[in-house]
Amino acid sequence: MVNVAVLGGGVVGSGVVDVIRKNCFSISQRAGEEIYVKKLVDIRDFSDSAYGDIYTDNPDEVFNDSSIGVVVETIGGIGVAYEFTKRALQTGRHVVTSNKELVATHGPELLKMARDNRVNYLFEASVGGGIPIIRPLNQCLAANEIHGITGILNGTTNYILTQMKNRGKDFDTALKEAQRNGYAEADPTADIEGHDACRKIAILSSIAYNEFVDYRNIHTEGITKLTLPDMRYADALGCVIKLVAISKKAGDMVYARVSPAIISKTHPLANVEDVFNAIVVKGDAIGEAMFYGRGAGKLPTASAVVADIIDIVKHTGISARNVWPRRDYNNVIPVEDMETRFFIRVLVRNCDEARRYIIKNFGEVSFISLDGGRAPDNELAFSTRKDKEKNLRAKIDSLKGIGSIKQVAGVIRYEEE
Amino acid sequence: MVNVAVLGGGVVGSGVVDVIRKNCFSISQRAGEEIYVKKLVDIRDFSDSAYGDIYTDNPDEVFNDSSIGVVVETIGGIGVAYEFTKRALQTGRHVVTSNKELVATHGPELLKMARDNRVNYLFEASVGGGIPIIRPLNQCLAANEIHGITGILNGTTNYILTQMKNRGKDFDTALKEAQRNGYAEADPTADIEGHDACRKIAILSSIAYNEFVDYRNIHTEGITKLTLPDMRYADALGCVIKLVAISKKAGDMVYARVSPAIISKTHPLANVEDVFNAIVVKGDAIGEAMFYGRGAGKLPTASAVVADIIDIVKHTGISARNVWPRRDYNNVIPVEDMETRFFIRVLVRNCDEARRYIIKNFGEVSFISLDGGRAPDNELAFSTRKDKEKNLRAKIDSLKGIGSIKQVAGVIRYEEE
Repeated sequence: MVNVAVLGGGVVGSGVVDVIRKNCFSISQRAGEEIYVKKLVDIRDFSDSAYGDIYTDNPDEVFNDSSIGVVVETIGGIGVAYEFTKRALQTGRHVVTSNKELVATHGPELLKMARDNRVNYLFEASVGGGIPIIRPLNQCLAANEIHGITGILNGTTNYILTQMKNRGKDFDTALKEAQRNGYAEADPTADIEGHDACRKIAILSSIAYNEFVDYRNIHTEGITKLTLPDMRYADALGCVIKLVAISKKAGDMVYARVSPAIISKTHPLANVEDVFNAIVVKGDAIGEAMFYGRGAGKLPTASAVVADIIDIVKHTGISARNVWPRRDYNNVIPVEDMETRFFIRVLVRNCDEARRYIIKNFGEVSFISLDGGRAPDNELAFSTRKDKEKNLRAKIDSLKGIGSIKQVAGVIRYEEE
Repeated sequence: MVNVAVLGGGVVGSGVVDVIRKNCFSISQRAGEEIYVKKLVDIRDFSDSAYGDIYTDNPDEVFNDSSIGVVVETIGGIGVAYEFTKRALQTGRHVVTSNKELVATHGPELLKMARDNRVNYLFEASVGGGIPIIRPLNQCLAANEIHGITGILNGTTNYILTQMKNRGKDFDTALKEAQRNGYAEADPTADIEGHDACRKIAILSSIAYNEFVDYRNIHTEGITKLTLPDMRYADALGCVIKLVAISKKAGDMVYARVSPAIISKTHPLANVEDVFNAIVVKGDAIGEAMFYGRGAGKLPTASAVVADIIDIVKHTGISARNVWPRRDYNNVIPVEDMETRFFIRVLVRNCDEARRYIIKNFGEVSFISLDGGRAPDNELAFSTRKDKEKNLRAKIDSLKGIGSIKQVAGVIRYEEE
């Protein structure tokens, strides 16, 4: 029997206990040994809950209990979670977590600490909720050189964008609805500003390229500036707008970015709606593979945590060999130096003059008409050619000083591969 | 260093050698040990090929070489492949294969033989080509009770159906084009009659439900009877027609089937086009997860084989614990006993009379109009209510004796979950 302690009795932590209890027979069968949750640690009082029999508020009851071999950390954040994780690893316990912030921040140290102590530090649940993605990247695609990853990694923003596109709701209304439905938190910043997706693409990139990609170096934009007019133009182009996290290997460097992007309706990610997530992985042998499912939620995320536990039980003593070396330079290419293509929407005072200036300024562009060809006569929307982002940004800046142009109302990248 | 022998130098076998040679550095890094292909065995002469240095036509050179620890079987079929696989397992070699026919036929014996000899018998490449699906089912979703699997498991037929739908080609033309492009074999029977998909859903079901599901018990229909008119009606319903393999757990029994099915355009499988495959897995904790990618092809399939080899090298000595018990009864529910709903298209002599008979015979049905409401006046298309398949079949049979009805031209199931 393998004894497990769960640190943190929140949504994911309690879900882990529930899943193990509910499917104990088949889980034990697959693991080859019984898996038993011996302790649930939280500073909140769970004595009267369904977890009363295993509840304690004293973490020492875990660390002083030599029969506990696996610690599940679902506390979140990089404070006490970091301390407990180190303590667990240093005392020879395997650690399984859903804590993307901790993995994205201290992954290299914790993976090395795990290896040095011949235990595992596993975090399938940190990206994509229940979608199996970390293990496939590590194992199933191990024969591939991974060239790139493109994903919809945040369910909250994808729900909001789906509501905007399908129901014509504006951003604020869609956000409020997401909050009402429990898909967005009271403080939605981490989701809507792209921070959550940023940590996730950093983790996936670190695995795919076998070196640490620091999320703090990744250019990140959220969805707060997206408007319904932008969505209508995207639709007219046969496209949709998604919050896309991408990462590509470029020699010794990595290109990574989180931002809204216009993608074709035929792109595999285009039909990923509501709170679903999906990740497209490009490898030299496999071509393109996509993984799709619920990116969050109690049971899906718990299911990923438990899969990690089963893996540990099946392979006791086998420590993961991968650590993420930290480069001594910033290995993320600045977004300004990458080539891109922009969709730009401007509000104009004088349409003909503005159009002439845009052509003069950007060279070849394609103006976009809405269905039926009748764009409002006080705005122009166009697509630029591909160029270095900093060159395009300079040209966009120059629009702001032009009398015939009232406002640059929308600037969105195309994601074309 | 781990020495590998590849039996069979066809598309997949040579791809395995290519992938290992090309990505040897990163593969060795991930496996923790160098992986070296020492022999390639084929009855065809490869002396003058890129594999000349490792080529032999004598399998004893593998079986008598105690330094070879892993055997890759890409011969195909259940003859010599079966003999060689048994010989390899019995002499303590791990075996990795892409041979779905062998796994679907002799899986229980070979898995048991592997366990008894403390080696692995792995077959990620047997389903979904490069798509990681077997390992995710075994490992990542191990915390779930799997309720069902729905998949597009055959690239050839999906390519043909995509050509029919998008280009208006009829079945024969689309098949010929698939053959010209190398997507269909000269004898396309195994693909177009659904046999290939049937073996694959049998393998996935055996893993998901942890008991052997014999492909010979699975009701299988191909796509040869599908017509463009059927596709137009499906389109009018907001649906597409796909060759779908499904399997569901129902108590001690399994429901499984391979057949064309009408699915909504909003179904995750609806946008899987051309030679791509996708598999939707439903689990009690994860909800729905989908795996998508190239279901065939040299490098994707080789990539799956090599991932299995890496897994073996990383976990030397660890034998897979799962075997597939054979039930002493047929655990597949006869298709006639399952509930379904049919789309039916009939050619008629007298439209009003036929319509009255259909209503009298089937009870409540919904007749389907093509776009613009103008269906040809010599045909009727309708959807039945849900009922046991045998009841519906009896009613369909009764249509054939009716004077106002010339021919039952199309009968297709709906797949509605």
